[in-house]
Amino acid sequence: MPHLVMIRHGESDWNRQNRFTGWIDVDLSETGIAQARRSGELLRETGIAFDVAFTSVLKRAIRTLWIVLDELDRMWLPQHAHWRLNERHYGALQGLNKAETAAKHGDEQVHIWRRSFDVPPPPLSPDDPMHPSHDPRYAGVPRELLPATESLKITLERVMPVWSEAIAPELRAGRNVLIAAHGNSLRALAKHLFGIGDQEIVGLEIPTGNPILVELDEALRPLRAGYLDASRAGPLPKLG
Amino acid sequence: MPHLVMIRHGESDWNRQNRFTGWIDVDLSETGIAQARRSGELLRETGIAFDVAFTSVLKRAIRTLWIVLDELDRMWLPQHAHWRLNERHYGALQGLNKAETAAKHGDEQVHIWRRSFDVPPPPLSPDDPMHPSHDPRYAGVPRELLPATESLKITLERVMPVWSEAIAPELRAGRNVLIAAHGNSLRALAKHLFGIGDQEIVGLEIPTGNPILVELDEALRPLRAGYLDASRAGPLPKLG
Repeated sequence: MPHLVMIRHGESDWNRQNRFTGWIDVDLSETGIAQARRSGELLRETGIAFDVAFTSVLKRAIRTLWIVLDELDRMWLPQHAHWRLNERHYGALQGLNKAETAAKHGDEQVHIWRRSFDVPPPPLSPDDPMHPSHDPRYAGVPRELLPATESLKITLERVMPVWSEAIAPELRAGRNVLIAAHGNSLRALAKHLFGIGDQEIVGLEIPTGNPILVELDEALRPLRAGYLDASRAGPLPKLG
Repeated sequence: MPHLVMIRHGESDWNRQNRFTGWIDVDLSETGIAQARRSGELLRETGIAFDVAFTSVLKRAIRTLWIVLDELDRMWLPQHAHWRLNERHYGALQGLNKAETAAKHGDEQVHIWRRSFDVPPPPLSPDDPMHPSHDPRYAGVPRELLPATESLKITLERVMPVWSEAIAPELRAGRNVLIAAHGNSLRALAKHLFGIGDQEIVGLEIPTGNPILVELDEALRPLRAGYLDASRAGPLPKLG
Protein backbone atom coordinates (compact mmCIF):
# COMPACT_ATOMS: atom_id res chain seq x y z
CA MET A 1 0.00 0.00 0.00
CA PRO A 2 1.57 3.30 -1.02
CA HIS A 3 1.80 6.22 1.39
CA LEU A 4 1.18 9.82 0.42
CA VAL A 5 2.28 12.72 2.60
CA MET A 6 1.16 16.28 1.95
CA ILE A 7 2.80 19.18 3.80
CA ARG A 8 1.69 22.79 3.58
CA HIS A 9 4.85 24.95 3.74
CA GLY A 10 5.77 26.51 7.07
CA GLU A 11 4.85 30.10 7.93
CA SER A 12 6.19 32.65 5.45
CA ASP A 13 7.35 36.21 6.03
CA TRP A 14 4.08 37.47 4.56
CA ASN A 15 1.81 35.17 6.55
CA ARG A 16 3.08 37.26 9.47
CA GLN A 17 2.43 40.54 7.68
CA ASN A 18 -1.09 39.43 6.67
CA ARG A 19 -0.54 40.16 2.96
CA PHE A 20 -1.98 38.36 -0.07
CA THR A 21 0.93 36.26 -1.32
CA GLY A 22 -0.25 33.96 -4.14
CA TRP A 23 2.55 33.47 -6.66
CA ILE A 24 4.89 36.05 -5.09
CA ASP A 25 8.05 34.19 -4.11
CA VAL A 26 8.18 34.96 -0.39
CA ASP A 27 10.56 32.95 1.81
CA LEU A 28 9.88 31.07 5.06
CA SER A 29 10.05 32.94 8.37
CA GLU A 30 12.19 31.59 11.22
CA THR A 31 8.99 30.02 12.59
CA GLY A 32 8.35 28.46 9.18
CA ILE A 33 11.84 26.96 9.11
CA ALA A 34 11.29 25.46 12.57
CA GLN A 35 7.90 24.06 11.43
CA ALA A 36 9.53 22.43 8.43
CA ARG A 37 12.22 20.87 10.61
CA ARG A 38 9.56 19.56 13.01
CA SER A 39 7.65 18.09 10.04
CA GLY A 40 10.81 16.28 9.00
CA GLU A 41 11.29 14.86 12.50
CA LEU A 42 7.68 13.64 12.62
CA LEU A 43 8.07 12.01 9.21
CA ARG A 44 11.31 10.33 10.25
CA GLU A 45 9.51 8.83 13.24
CA THR A 46 6.95 7.17 10.93
CA GLY A 47 9.77 5.09 9.43
CA ILE A 48 8.23 5.41 5.96
CA ALA A 49 10.84 5.23 3.19
CA PHE A 50 9.87 7.93 0.69
CA ASP A 51 10.75 7.36 -2.95
CA VAL A 52 9.96 10.61 -4.72
CA ALA A 53 9.06 14.22 -3.88
CA PHE A 54 6.96 16.90 -5.53
CA THR A 55 6.80 20.61 -4.82
CA SER A 56 5.84 23.92 -6.44
CA VAL A 57 8.22 26.43 -8.06
CA LEU A 58 7.87 28.78 -5.05
CA LYS A 59 10.70 28.84 -2.54
CA ARG A 60 8.57 28.61 0.62
CA ALA A 61 7.45 25.15 -0.53
CA ILE A 62 10.83 24.12 -1.98
CA ARG A 63 12.68 25.17 1.19
CA THR A 64 10.15 23.23 3.28
CA LEU A 65 10.85 20.16 1.12
CA TRP A 66 14.63 20.60 1.36
CA ILE A 67 14.53 20.89 5.15
CA VAL A 68 12.31 17.78 5.36
CA LEU A 69 14.55 15.77 3.00
CA ASP A 70 17.59 16.81 5.04
CA GLU A 71 15.90 15.63 8.28
CA LEU A 72 14.97 12.36 6.56
CA ASP A 73 18.58 11.97 5.30
CA ARG A 74 17.11 11.57 1.80
CA MET A 75 18.41 14.64 0.02
CA TRP A 76 19.08 12.38 -2.97
CA LEU A 77 15.37 11.72 -3.61
CA PRO A 78 14.14 12.60 -7.13
CA GLN A 79 12.32 15.91 -6.72
CA HIS A 80 9.97 17.54 -9.16
CA ALA A 81 9.19 21.27 -8.87
CA HIS A 82 5.97 21.92 -10.82
CA TRP A 83 4.14 25.24 -11.35
CA ARG A 84 0.78 23.43 -11.11
CA LEU A 85 1.43 22.87 -7.39
CA ASN A 86 1.76 26.64 -6.80
CA GLU A 87 -0.51 28.52 -4.42
CA ARG A 88 -3.75 30.04 -5.79
CA HIS A 89 -2.93 33.09 -7.92
CA TYR A 90 -4.44 36.10 -6.19
CA GLY A 91 -4.45 38.45 -9.20
CA ALA A 92 -4.12 42.17 -8.56
CA LEU A 93 -4.48 41.62 -4.80
CA GLN A 94 -1.03 40.02 -4.57
CA GLY A 95 1.28 42.04 -2.36
CA LEU A 96 -1.56 44.02 -0.72
CA ASN A 97 -2.23 43.99 3.00
CA LYS A 98 -5.50 42.21 3.77
CA ALA A 99 -6.77 44.92 6.16
CA GLU A 100 -5.97 47.73 3.69
CA THR A 101 -7.70 45.79 0.92
CA ALA A 102 -10.79 45.44 3.11
CA ALA A 103 -10.73 49.19 3.85
CA LYS A 104 -10.60 49.95 0.11
CA HIS A 105 -12.99 47.35 -1.35
CA GLY A 106 -15.15 46.63 1.69
CA ASP A 107 -15.16 43.64 4.01
CA GLU A 108 -17.88 41.91 2.06
CA GLN A 109 -16.07 42.03 -1.29
CA VAL A 110 -12.82 40.77 0.27
CA HIS A 111 -14.74 38.00 1.99
CA ILE A 112 -16.19 36.97 -1.39
CA TRP A 113 -12.75 36.91 -3.04
CA ARG A 114 -11.29 34.92 -0.17
CA ARG A 115 -14.13 32.55 0.66
CA SER A 116 -16.21 32.01 -2.47
CA PHE A 117 -15.58 28.95 -4.63
CA ASP A 118 -15.62 30.54 -8.05
CA VAL A 119 -15.17 34.33 -7.83
CA PRO A 120 -11.62 35.40 -8.82
CA PRO A 121 -10.08 38.70 -7.63
CA PRO A 122 -9.34 41.40 -10.27
CA PRO A 123 -6.73 40.08 -12.75
CA LEU A 124 -3.20 41.34 -13.30
CA SER A 125 -2.76 43.11 -16.61
CA PRO A 126 -0.67 41.01 -19.08
CA ASP A 127 1.94 43.79 -19.18
CA ASP A 128 2.14 44.05 -15.39
CA PRO A 129 5.73 43.06 -14.45
CA MET A 130 4.22 40.72 -11.85
CA HIS A 131 2.32 38.75 -14.52
CA PRO A 132 3.80 35.21 -14.59
CA SER A 133 4.56 35.48 -18.33
CA HIS A 134 7.50 37.76 -17.38
CA ASP A 135 9.02 35.28 -14.90
CA PRO A 136 11.68 32.87 -16.26
CA ARG A 137 10.46 30.01 -14.09
CA TYR A 138 7.32 29.83 -16.27
CA ALA A 139 9.18 30.15 -19.59
CA GLY A 140 8.39 26.53 -20.47
CA VAL A 141 4.66 26.85 -19.72
CA PRO A 142 2.30 27.63 -22.64
CA ARG A 143 1.27 31.25 -22.29
CA GLU A 144 -2.46 30.49 -22.37
CA LEU A 145 -2.15 28.30 -19.26
CA LEU A 146 -0.61 31.04 -17.09
CA PRO A 147 -3.19 32.69 -14.83
CA ALA A 148 -3.59 36.46 -14.26
CA THR A 149 -5.94 35.64 -11.35
CA GLU A 150 -7.66 32.53 -10.01
CA SER A 151 -10.76 31.53 -8.11
CA LEU A 152 -10.37 28.47 -5.89
CA LYS A 153 -12.23 26.54 -8.60
CA ILE A 154 -9.67 27.53 -11.23
CA THR A 155 -6.82 26.59 -8.88
CA LEU A 156 -8.30 23.13 -8.30
CA GLU A 157 -8.68 22.54 -12.03
CA ARG A 158 -5.11 23.66 -12.74
CA VAL A 159 -3.65 21.39 -10.05
CA MET A 160 -5.31 18.17 -11.18
CA PRO A 161 -3.17 17.36 -14.26
CA VAL A 162 0.00 17.11 -12.15
CA TRP A 163 -1.85 14.66 -9.91
CA SER A 164 -3.12 12.43 -12.69
CA GLU A 165 -0.09 12.64 -14.99
CA ALA A 166 2.83 12.71 -12.52
CA ILE A 167 1.89 11.91 -8.90
CA ALA A 168 -0.74 9.18 -9.24
CA PRO A 169 1.45 7.03 -11.55
CA GLU A 170 4.18 6.99 -8.85
CA LEU A 171 1.67 5.87 -6.22
CA ARG A 172 0.22 3.24 -8.56
CA ALA A 173 3.75 1.88 -8.99
CA GLY A 174 3.81 1.40 -5.21
CA ARG A 175 6.11 4.34 -4.44
CA ASN A 176 5.78 6.49 -1.34
CA VAL A 177 5.25 10.12 -2.32
CA LEU A 178 6.02 13.33 -0.43
CA ILE A 179 4.42 16.62 -1.53
CA ALA A 180 5.39 20.02 -0.10
CA ALA A 181 2.99 22.63 -1.42
CA HIS A 182 0.44 25.31 -0.48
CA GLY A 183 -2.92 25.70 1.26
CA ASN A 184 -4.94 25.84 -1.96
CA SER A 185 -2.99 23.37 -4.10
CA LEU A 186 -3.29 20.86 -1.25
CA ARG A 187 -7.03 21.62 -1.02
CA ALA A 188 -7.24 20.47 -4.65
CA LEU A 189 -5.61 17.14 -3.82
CA ALA A 190 -7.67 16.71 -0.62
CA LYS A 191 -10.90 17.48 -2.49
CA HIS A 192 -10.11 14.82 -5.05
CA LEU A 193 -8.87 12.18 -2.59
CA PHE A 194 -11.64 12.58 -0.01
CA GLY A 195 -14.48 13.51 -2.37
CA ILE A 196 -15.16 16.87 -0.73
CA GLY A 197 -17.90 19.10 -2.19
CA ASP A 198 -17.38 22.51 -3.79
CA GLN A 199 -18.82 24.45 -0.87
CA GLU A 200 -17.16 22.34 1.83
CA ILE A 201 -13.67 22.64 0.37
CA VAL A 202 -13.74 26.42 0.87
CA GLY A 203 -13.88 25.79 4.62
CA LEU A 204 -11.12 23.16 4.81
CA GLU A 205 -8.21 24.81 6.61
CA ILE A 206 -4.89 22.99 6.29
CA PRO A 207 -2.42 24.08 9.00
CA THR A 208 1.14 25.07 8.00
CA GLY A 209 4.00 22.66 8.62
CA ASN A 210 1.91 19.69 9.78
CA PRO A 211 2.22 16.63 7.51
CA ILE A 212 -0.97 14.83 6.44
CA LEU A 213 -0.26 11.12 6.11
CA VAL A 214 -2.61 9.20 3.80
CA GLU A 215 -2.56 5.45 3.31
CA LEU A 216 -4.07 4.48 -0.03
CA ASP A 217 -5.43 1.29 -1.51
CA GLU A 218 -4.46 0.12 -4.97
CA ALA A 219 -7.14 2.24 -6.61
CA LEU A 220 -5.66 5.23 -4.72
CA ARG A 221 -8.65 5.49 -2.38
CA PRO A 222 -7.68 6.66 1.13
CA LEU A 223 -7.83 3.93 3.78
CA ARG A 224 -6.52 6.05 6.65
CA ALA A 225 -5.56 9.70 6.93
CA GLY A 226 -4.41 12.00 9.68
CA TYR A 227 -2.14 14.85 10.73
CA LEU A 228 1.18 13.82 12.27
CA ASP A 229 1.13 16.67 14.82
CA ALA A 230 -2.14 15.88 16.56
CA SER A 231 -1.89 18.97 18.79
CA ARG A 232 -2.25 21.31 15.78
CA ALA A 233 -4.49 19.12 13.62
CA GLY A 234 -7.30 20.57 11.55
CA PRO A 235 -10.35 18.42 10.78
CA LEU A 236 -10.08 15.96 7.92
CA PRO A 237 -13.16 14.43 6.30
CA LYS A 238 -14.40 11.18 7.78
CA LEU A 239 -13.22 8.20 5.79
CA GLY A 240 -15.66 5.65 4.55
CA MET B 1 26.18 29.46 -27.10
CA PRO B 2 25.37 27.36 -24.07
CA HIS B 3 27.27 27.73 -20.81
CA LEU B 4 28.35 24.85 -18.64
CA VAL B 5 29.42 25.32 -15.04
CA MET B 6 31.06 22.55 -13.03
CA ILE B 7 31.55 22.93 -9.28
CA ARG B 8 33.42 20.50 -7.06
CA HIS B 9 31.57 20.40 -3.71
CA GLY B 10 32.98 22.45 -0.86
CA GLU B 11 35.23 20.91 1.80
CA SER B 12 33.63 17.98 3.63
CA ASP B 13 34.04 16.88 7.24
CA TRP B 14 36.30 14.07 6.03
CA ASN B 15 38.49 16.22 3.75
CA ARG B 16 39.56 17.76 7.09
CA GLN B 17 40.14 14.38 8.71
CA ASN B 18 42.14 13.14 5.70
CA ARG B 19 40.02 10.00 5.28
CA PHE B 20 39.11 8.13 2.09
CA THR B 21 35.50 9.16 1.46
CA GLY B 22 34.36 7.84 -1.92
CA TRP B 23 30.66 6.94 -1.77
CA ILE B 24 30.33 7.47 2.00
CA ASP B 25 27.73 10.20 2.49
CA VAL B 26 29.74 12.75 4.45
CA ASP B 27 28.36 16.28 4.85
CA LEU B 28 30.01 19.64 4.14
CA SER B 29 32.11 21.29 6.85
CA GLU B 30 31.43 24.91 7.86
CA THR B 31 34.25 25.87 5.47
CA GLY B 32 32.58 23.83 2.73
CA ILE B 33 29.27 25.64 3.30
CA ALA B 34 31.02 29.00 3.05
CA GLN B 35 32.78 27.86 -0.18
CA ALA B 36 29.43 26.85 -1.68
CA ARG B 37 27.91 30.21 -0.78
CA ARG B 38 30.88 32.03 -2.33
CA SER B 39 30.47 29.88 -5.49
CA GLY B 40 26.84 31.01 -5.67
CA GLU B 41 27.83 34.67 -5.34
CA LEU B 42 30.45 34.34 -8.09
CA LEU B 43 27.92 32.65 -10.36
CA ARG B 44 25.32 35.34 -9.67
CA GLU B 45 27.85 37.97 -10.74
CA THR B 46 28.25 36.28 -14.15
CA GLY B 47 24.61 37.06 -14.89
CA ILE B 48 24.17 33.68 -16.59
CA ALA B 49 20.59 32.37 -16.36
CA PHE B 50 20.90 28.67 -15.60
CA ASP B 51 18.16 26.38 -16.86
CA VAL B 52 18.86 22.98 -15.33
CA ALA B 53 21.10 21.44 -12.65
CA PHE B 54 22.76 18.06 -12.19
CA THR B 55 24.34 16.57 -9.10
CA SER B 56 25.28 13.23 -7.54
CA VAL B 57 23.29 11.32 -4.91
CA LEU B 58 25.80 12.31 -2.20
CA LYS B 59 24.83 15.09 0.17
CA ARG B 60 28.08 17.07 -0.01
CA ALA B 61 27.37 17.69 -3.71
CA ILE B 62 23.60 18.12 -3.29
CA ARG B 63 24.02 20.61 -0.43
CA THR B 64 26.56 22.55 -2.52
CA LEU B 65 23.98 22.70 -5.32
CA TRP B 66 21.17 23.79 -2.96
CA ILE B 67 23.28 26.60 -1.49
CA VAL B 68 24.25 27.78 -4.98
CA LEU B 69 20.64 27.66 -6.24
CA ASP B 70 19.53 29.62 -3.17
CA GLU B 71 22.20 32.30 -3.84
CA LEU B 72 21.09 32.43 -7.49
CA ASP B 73 17.42 32.73 -6.41
CA ARG B 74 16.71 29.75 -8.69
CA MET B 75 15.68 27.08 -6.22
CA TRP B 76 12.93 26.13 -8.71
CA LEU B 77 15.41 24.86 -11.31
CA PRO B 78 14.87 21.27 -12.47
CA GLN B 79 17.53 19.25 -10.65
CA HIS B 80 18.67 15.74 -11.41
CA ALA B 81 20.57 13.75 -8.78
CA HIS B 82 22.36 10.90 -10.57
CA TRP B 83 24.54 8.16 -9.08
CA ARG B 84 26.84 8.31 -12.12
CA LEU B 85 28.04 11.75 -10.95
CA ASN B 86 29.20 10.27 -7.60
CA GLU B 87 32.81 10.45 -6.44
CA ARG B 88 35.17 7.61 -7.37
CA HIS B 89 34.33 4.50 -5.28
CA TYR B 90 37.33 3.80 -3.07
CA GLY B 91 36.49 0.18 -2.28
CA ALA B 92 37.65 -1.24 1.04
CA LEU B 93 39.71 1.90 1.74
CA GLN B 94 36.55 3.98 2.30
CA GLY B 95 36.42 5.33 5.84
CA LEU B 96 40.12 4.71 6.52
CA ASN B 97 42.55 7.45 7.46
CA LYS B 98 45.05 8.05 4.67
CA ALA B 99 48.10 8.09 6.97
CA GLU B 100 47.01 4.87 8.74
CA THR B 101 46.44 3.21 5.39
CA ALA B 102 49.95 4.21 4.28
CA ALA B 103 51.38 2.80 7.54
CA LYS B 104 49.59 -0.51 6.89
CA HIS B 105 50.01 -0.99 3.14
CA GLY B 106 53.11 1.15 2.53
CA ASP B 107 53.39 4.58 0.97
CA GLU B 108 54.11 3.17 -2.44
CA GLN B 109 50.98 1.00 -2.60
CA VAL B 110 48.75 3.86 -1.41
CA HIS B 111 50.36 6.15 -3.96
CA ILE B 112 49.51 3.61 -6.68
CA TRP B 113 45.86 3.37 -5.55
CA ARG B 114 45.55 7.16 -5.40
CA ARG B 115 47.57 8.24 -8.41
CA SER B 116 47.51 5.44 -10.97
CA PHE B 117 45.00 5.57 -13.82
CA ASP B 118 43.75 2.01 -13.79
CA VAL B 119 44.62 0.27 -10.48
CA PRO B 120 41.57 -0.04 -8.21
CA PRO B 121 41.92 -0.42 -4.41
CA PRO B 122 40.76 -3.71 -2.83
CA PRO B 123 36.99 -4.19 -3.39
CA LEU B 124 34.24 -4.26 -0.79
CA SER B 125 32.72 -7.69 -0.31
CA PRO B 126 29.17 -7.87 -1.76
CA ASP B 127 27.81 -8.66 1.71
CA ASP B 128 29.65 -5.77 3.34
CA PRO B 129 26.95 -3.43 4.71
CA MET B 130 28.80 -0.56 2.99
CA HIS B 131 28.40 -2.16 -0.45
CA PRO B 132 26.11 0.13 -2.52
CA SER B 133 23.68 -2.73 -3.21
CA HIS B 134 22.47 -2.33 0.41
CA ASP B 135 21.77 1.41 0.10
CA PRO B 136 18.21 2.43 -0.92
CA ARG B 137 19.47 5.30 -3.05
CA TYR B 138 20.82 2.74 -5.53
CA ALA B 139 17.73 0.53 -5.50
CA GLY B 140 16.85 1.53 -9.06
CA VAL B 141 20.33 0.83 -10.44
CA PRO B 142 20.99 -2.58 -12.04
CA ARG B 143 23.08 -4.57 -9.59
CA GLU B 144 25.82 -5.33 -12.12
CA LEU B 145 26.49 -1.60 -12.61
CA LEU B 146 27.16 -0.93 -8.91
CA PRO B 147 30.90 -0.80 -8.13
CA ALA B 148 32.62 -2.50 -5.17
CA THR B 149 35.75 -0.45 -6.00
CA GLU B 150 36.91 1.75 -8.86
CA SER B 151 40.10 2.89 -10.55
CA LEU B 152 39.99 6.39 -11.99
CA LYS B 153 39.56 4.73 -15.40
CA ILE B 154 36.44 2.89 -14.24
CA THR B 155 35.06 6.10 -12.72
CA LEU B 156 35.53 7.99 -15.99
CA GLU B 157 33.74 5.25 -17.94
CA ARG B 158 30.85 5.15 -15.50
CA VAL B 159 30.36 8.93 -15.61
CA MET B 160 30.18 9.28 -19.39
CA PRO B 161 26.63 7.92 -20.02
CA VAL B 162 25.08 10.66 -17.86
CA TRP B 163 26.98 13.20 -19.96
CA SER B 164 25.93 11.82 -23.31
CA GLU B 165 22.36 10.82 -22.41
CA ALA B 166 21.29 13.59 -20.02
CA ILE B 167 23.65 16.60 -19.85
CA ALA B 168 24.81 17.02 -23.47
CA PRO B 169 21.22 17.01 -24.85
CA GLU B 170 20.37 19.96 -22.57
CA LEU B 171 23.41 21.90 -23.81
CA ARG B 172 22.60 21.04 -27.43
CA ALA B 173 19.13 22.49 -26.85
CA GLY B 174 20.86 25.76 -25.88
CA ARG B 175 20.27 25.45 -22.13
CA ASN B 176 22.77 26.63 -19.53
CA VAL B 177 23.75 23.73 -17.28
CA LEU B 178 25.05 23.72 -13.71
CA ILE B 179 26.77 20.61 -12.32
CA ALA B 180 27.72 20.19 -8.65
CA ALA B 181 29.75 17.02 -8.26
CA HIS B 182 33.10 15.57 -7.12
CA GLY B 183 36.81 15.73 -7.93
CA ASN B 184 36.84 12.53 -9.96
CA SER B 185 33.43 12.73 -11.65
CA LEU B 186 34.39 16.24 -12.80
CA ARG B 187 37.75 14.91 -14.02
CA ALA B 188 35.73 12.61 -16.30
CA LEU B 189 33.85 15.54 -17.80
CA ALA B 190 37.02 17.67 -18.08
CA LYS B 191 38.92 14.82 -19.76
CA HIS B 192 36.17 14.47 -22.35
CA LEU B 193 35.66 18.21 -22.95
CA PHE B 194 39.31 19.20 -23.13
CA GLY B 195 40.68 16.00 -24.67
CA ILE B 196 43.06 15.27 -21.79
CA GLY B 197 45.18 12.10 -21.94
CA ASP B 198 44.98 9.15 -19.53
CA GLN B 199 48.18 9.99 -17.71
CA GLU B 200 47.61 13.75 -17.60
CA ILE B 201 44.13 13.46 -16.11
CA VAL B 202 45.57 11.81 -12.99
CA GLY B 203 47.39 15.06 -12.23
CA LEU B 204 44.48 17.46 -12.84
CA GLU B 205 43.53 18.83 -9.42
CA ILE B 206 40.16 20.56 -9.30
CA PRO B 207 39.87 22.84 -6.25
CA THR B 208 36.78 22.59 -4.00
CA GLY B 209 34.05 25.23 -4.24
CA ASN B 210 35.46 27.12 -7.23
CA PRO B 211 33.15 27.06 -10.28
CA ILE B 212 34.65 26.24 -13.69
CA LEU B 213 32.80 28.20 -16.37
CA VAL B 214 32.96 26.72 -19.88
CA GLU B 215 31.55 28.38 -22.98
CA LEU B 216 30.78 25.82 -25.67
CA ASP B 217 30.17 25.96 -29.37
CA GLU B 218 27.28 24.16 -31.02
CA ALA B 219 29.25 20.92 -31.29
CA LEU B 220 29.92 21.25 -27.53
CA ARG B 221 33.60 22.05 -28.02
CA PRO B 222 34.95 24.48 -25.40
CA LEU B 223 35.60 28.00 -26.71
CA ARG B 224 36.64 29.48 -23.37
CA ALA B 225 37.08 28.04 -19.90
CA GLY B 226 38.22 29.31 -16.55
CA TYR B 227 37.79 29.28 -12.79
CA LEU B 228 35.57 32.03 -11.37
CA ASP B 229 37.75 32.48 -8.26
CA ALA B 230 41.06 33.30 -9.94
CA SER B 231 42.90 33.45 -6.61
CA ARG B 232 42.34 29.74 -6.00
CA ALA B 233 42.40 28.51 -9.59
CA GLY B 234 44.08 25.29 -10.61
CA PRO B 235 45.50 24.94 -14.12
CA LEU B 236 43.10 24.10 -16.93
CA PRO B 237 44.32 22.74 -20.27
CA LYS B 238 45.09 25.33 -22.93
CA LEU B 239 42.24 25.74 -25.35
CA GLY B 240 42.22 26.09 -29.07
